[in-house]
Amino acid sequence: MIYFDNSATSLVKPESVYAAVLDAMKTFGGSGRGAHNAAMNAARCIFEAREEISLFFNGYGANNTVFTQNATEALNIAIFGTVKKGSHVITTENEHNSVLRPLFYLEDKGDITLSVVNGNKNGVIDPKDVEKEINDKTSLVVCNHVSNVTGNKIDIFSVGEICKKHSVPFIVDASQSAGVFHIDMRKNNISVLCFTGHKSLLGPQGTGGLCVKDGFYIDPFKQGGSGVQSFKRTQPENMPERLEAGTLNGHGIAGLLAGIRYIKNYGIGNIFEKEKHIAKMFYDGVKDFKNVKIYGDFSSWDRGAVVGINIGDIDSAVISDILNTEFDICTRAGAHCAPLVHKHFNTENQGIVRFSFSHFNTEYEIKKAIDAIYELNELYEKGEI
Amino acid sequence: MIYFDNSATSLVKPESVYAAVLDAMKTFGGSGRGAHNAAMNAARCIFEAREEISLFFNGYGANNTVFTQNATEALNIAIFGTVKKGSHVITTENEHNSVLRPLFYLEDKGDITLSVVNGNKNGVIDPKDVEKEINDKTSLVVCNHVSNVTGNKIDIFSVGEICKKHSVPFIVDASQSAGVFHIDMRKNNISVLCFTGHKSLLGPQGTGGLCVKDGFYIDPFKQGGSGVQSFKRTQPENMPERLEAGTLNGHGIAGLLAGIRYIKNYGIGNIFEKEKHIAKMFYDGVKDFKNVKIYGDFSSWDRGAVVGINIGDIDSAVISDILNTEFDICTRAGAHCAPLVHKHFNTENQGIVRFSFSHFNTEYEIKKAIDAIYELNELYEKGEI
Repeated sequence: MIYFDNSATSLVKPESVYAAVLDAMKTFGGSGRGAHNAAMNAARCIFEAREEISLFFNGYGANNTVFTQNATEALNIAIFGTVKKGSHVITTENEHNSVLRPLFYLEDKGDITLSVVNGNKNGVIDPKDVEKEINDKTSLVVCNHVSNVTGNKIDIFSVGEICKKHSVPFIVDASQSAGVFHIDMRKNNISVLCFTGHKSLLGPQGTGGLCVKDGFYIDPFKQGGSGVQSFKRTQPENMPERLEAGTLNGHGIAGLLAGIRYIKNYGIGNIFEKEKHIAKMFYDGVKDFKNVKIYGDFSSWDRGAVVGINIGDIDSAVISDILNTEFDICTRAGAHCAPLVHKHFNTENQGIVRFSFSHFNTEYEIKKAIDAIYELNELYEKGEI
Repeated sequence: MIYFDNSATSLVKPESVYAAVLDAMKTFGGSGRGAHNAAMNAARCIFEAREEISLFFNGYGANNTVFTQNATEALNIAIFGTVKKGSHVITTENEHNSVLRPLFYLEDKGDITLSVVNGNKNGVIDPKDVEKEINDKTSLVVCNHVSNVTGNKIDIFSVGEICKKHSVPFIVDASQSAGVFHIDMRKNNISVLCFTGHKSLLGPQGTGGLCVKDGFYIDPFKQGGSGVQSFKRTQPENMPERLEAGTLNGHGIAGLLAGIRYIKNYGIGNIFEKEKHIAKMFYDGVKDFKNVKIYGDFSSWDRGAVVGINIGDIDSAVISDILNTEFDICTRAGAHCAPLVHKHFNTENQGIVRFSFSHFNTEYEIKKAIDAIYELNELYEKGEI
């Protein structure tokens, strides 16, 4: 199997991730539930993971690193726990439904007004267009770092500067960038960084979280057991417990910690270069095929390792299915939970065949993929698909 | 290490659980994200897990089985998504903060009025006392099946009959009973059954969920990507996607499925008998020590395999620490996130040393524990602790 659906979840993980999860399943009690050796095994590992993640993103320490089931939950916590009733929020058309749906929900309820910034013809957002939308009532800017459909990257440094200038909190969805790009919360003036563990951070599914700027207050999203202050009627105020009701996925977090350590050891710059090489090789190999259309901005390779294509007017699901059944190549067709990107490119019906790469992918796999697209292009030419 | 903290999380899992998680980490794409082989590996396993769980609880099919990070999240979804503003809710003093805090939050906000039913002197709830609290505005009864502090069991059949008679929805927190007791949603008239995966269901951490009565409507708790109906502004109405935003913990769910299959194969009745034997052996071994106090109702062994004790007036944390450091025995001291149980037994300051057993525990381990309590009792007698 050739796996090119790393924007959905990374399939190949480092061996150390498998080993860490297995070891955790055999040695962890409930973190924060008891002070015996098994509970402490879990607590120590989770604390180390918080520290490592905070260092990784130049965040605000272990206590400001919160674990969730996935990035969607992190974004729900960050958005619903931050937004002020009657305020204005800015986002972009490049967002995933994990950002859009919470905001649409609040807009439909009448709690907020919403501005959605559009990109240029290739879908790139200009930070100046974000600034233009800021008004007296703006209480939040939320955007992703890298689009999950096109791989386009937004200049979060400039958006962060704008947010700082106007004193507006800035939430970043790093689902597609954490583990590939250096993200510095302080340098980029990020109030809340939301990440998923199971994509480029190479951890298992069921992991994710948010790093919060010190002192930035987020209301609890869930209420429940916290392992501390059990006699309090309300969720405790301390971080990270305020945002972490219930037993954490200690087993998964152990794997996530191993994933991040692998990345640090391999070098995040090396991962980026490898992914860039692989993605560029694919892009260069298919871009001149007559009926292949590619979506997004490829003028620079400072971008995510994602190449979204179509062949003529063929439904993306048809191409993706043929790639899977005839060539054993995994890609993702359809809308990728990012409706406005598809409105932008007028691909709401056709969808896009997304190739999303990992540094574990090989040149051999890329060659096979280019050959497959060549064949499909020929078949389309002959009217056979 | 002798592990007696199975009410927090089960430490020993069947070998098949470890194998299933490992296999899943190496073969699963994102369930519901793509239609290629890797995504289908995940989707098929998760669907099987939904079916198996629904059968296990005599629930309402795969589509009415929702996965969450833990029971706390399941209870938050069930309570916040169900409760009617201005209505009345009934719960009991035996509840965990995963039930109490959502309800206190709603009460403090003025959204609901709340009745908390007290137990008898041993903490057992009489279903008739639940019925007495029902009034015209009652919109919900929420209670656990087995207390996580005492192991006391409530007669959910009778509570279910009362709820049926008065047409009040019934939410059951099965965190301490799922995997040990037969739970029949239909027979017990349960509207929503909330469970955790990492305790007696023997799955990994990061798993849990809710089984919902067919047609029983729960509002979405999180908003986000659903893999279906991506162009809809709101969370899709279909179940289970309505209640499952974001990528599921496919790796953990594979382990949970293996855990449930192990239980079915071993026989849930055999697990109960084994746990009962172990718990009874411990109870019989320590109950007559002069300074040992035991909490809960032990008139019948149709109860959870939990024995909560204290030795004289010694802080439970001191006893639990000595058990850990001197005897390598893991127990949980303190409040166990169940504040009202401790108010009931006047153990708010002392806490309780909780021994919670698994069918993997052995008679040898119990003998060691009885010897340890004997020694501590002697030391207390001599004033040496």
